[in-house]
Amino acid sequence: MGLGIAALPLTFVAHVLAVVASVLVVVWVVNFRGGLSFDSPNKSLIFNIHPVLMLIGFIVHGGEAIISYKALPLKKEVKKLIHLVFHAIATIAGIVGIYAAFKYHNESGIANLYSLHSWFGIAALFLYAHQWLYGFVVFFYPGGSPAIRRGSFPWHSLFGLFVFVLAIGTASLGFLEKLTFLENGGLDKYGSEAILVNITAIVTVLFGVFVVFSAIADAPPPPATDDYQPI
Amino acid sequence: MGLGIAALPLTFVAHVLAVVASVLVVVWVVNFRGGLSFDSPNKSLIFNIHPVLMLIGFIVHGGEAIISYKALPLKKEVKKLIHLVFHAIATIAGIVGIYAAFKYHNESGIANLYSLHSWFGIAALFLYAHQWLYGFVVFFYPGGSPAIRRGSFPWHSLFGLFVFVLAIGTASLGFLEKLTFLENGGLDKYGSEAILVNITAIVTVLFGVFVVFSAIADAPPPPATDDYQPI
Repeated sequence: MGLGIAALPLTFVAHVLAVVASVLVVVWVVNFRGGLSFDSPNKSLIFNIHPVLMLIGFIVHGGEAIISYKALPLKKEVKKLIHLVFHAIATIAGIVGIYAAFKYHNESGIANLYSLHSWFGIAALFLYAHQWLYGFVVFFYPGGSPAIRRGSFPWHSLFGLFVFVLAIGTASLGFLEKLTFLENGGLDKYGSEAILVNITAIVTVLFGVFVVFSAIADAPPPPATDDYQPI
Repeated sequence: MGLGIAALPLTFVAHVLAVVASVLVVVWVVNFRGGLSFDSPNKSLIFNIHPVLMLIGFIVHGGEAIISYKALPLKKEVKKLIHLVFHAIATIAGIVGIYAAFKYHNESGIANLYSLHSWFGIAALFLYAHQWLYGFVVFFYPGGSPAIRRGSFPWHSLFGLFVFVLAIGTASLGFLEKLTFLENGGLDKYGSEAILVNITAIVTVLFGVFVVFSAIADAPPPPATDDYQPI
């Protein structure tokens, strides 16, 4: 895009937004929704695992995986390892987080997979896992030929950002859906919990904006000792 | 990104998706929701203007404004005129479409501006109108200095895509919110109307994907007769 902006300072903003969003989602489920539990007669506590794992586990780790590869002044092989480990954590958290939503539905007699949130969420996780596997095989082990790596790299970046934006959008859908259920059950539409959930969603979207912004900004120069290869 | 893909074929896919989404939203409000009216004792008919104007008026015209500037093999001045006229239509449709939502709420005793959909929608329209105004003044009339135009152009493109993606996300939130209200009122979660609305949302998102994809793909070479200037 030729923006002439360095990625690193943008990633600092992203980190702060990630921390704020993470704190807000924990405050929500702990202070307003009774806490978290994988096994409880109070089925809402099972649900509460879902937003926490999807936001802190899936979205924050996914975003940090993207910006760490882009902006850290480290050797390529080190950045690659951080990138794939963070994405692996995100994928596993996403799987467990979605499992928690199904468990809550099944134990509460709620229908599964009818909403746009659930459809986009399943699609995002499916594409995410495939993107991880492709990245692992082509860029890490056993690794594709230099021509395949060079040809794949812009597509890997673009498709990764697309899946990440889909995940951010799906999170917004989830916040709105849950809050709409609560408001239909009598929660004050302008009350402190409603405002908290909406602000958490806004901070999550801003985190997404700064992750994408970092990803299209200028990478730092490679370390002087690095045997530099762009991909 | 160096994808090495021409924008024009991608825009054809976007056009098809725009037509499909437009047809689906009209089928929804006419065949399932009783049609449209700006003034009716049946207040739902006032609401129905909102999704039609926001999707066909705001999002489709906004997307077509973006891809027409990118991909049409026309002179820059002609493309610029198409770009700003389409964005002007989108802005006006967005204002009237949001007015319809307020009118429906006010005449039905429904609260305004409490949901994430409404917050993001107002933000998207506000940013959109400012982006249009900035573009008009700097790139059209009276026009900024060549340095300002050159410096502004990547930011104009990037910010425009950001606002467009925000609009697409807001549309998804709106489809989910309305469908959740209807399902809380007894609509079958797996019924034909629910599936229709979700598919309309998916096609809208795919339209957004192909608009952004077109915008970052390679522009066609300028017409031979054009006194070529990149911005």
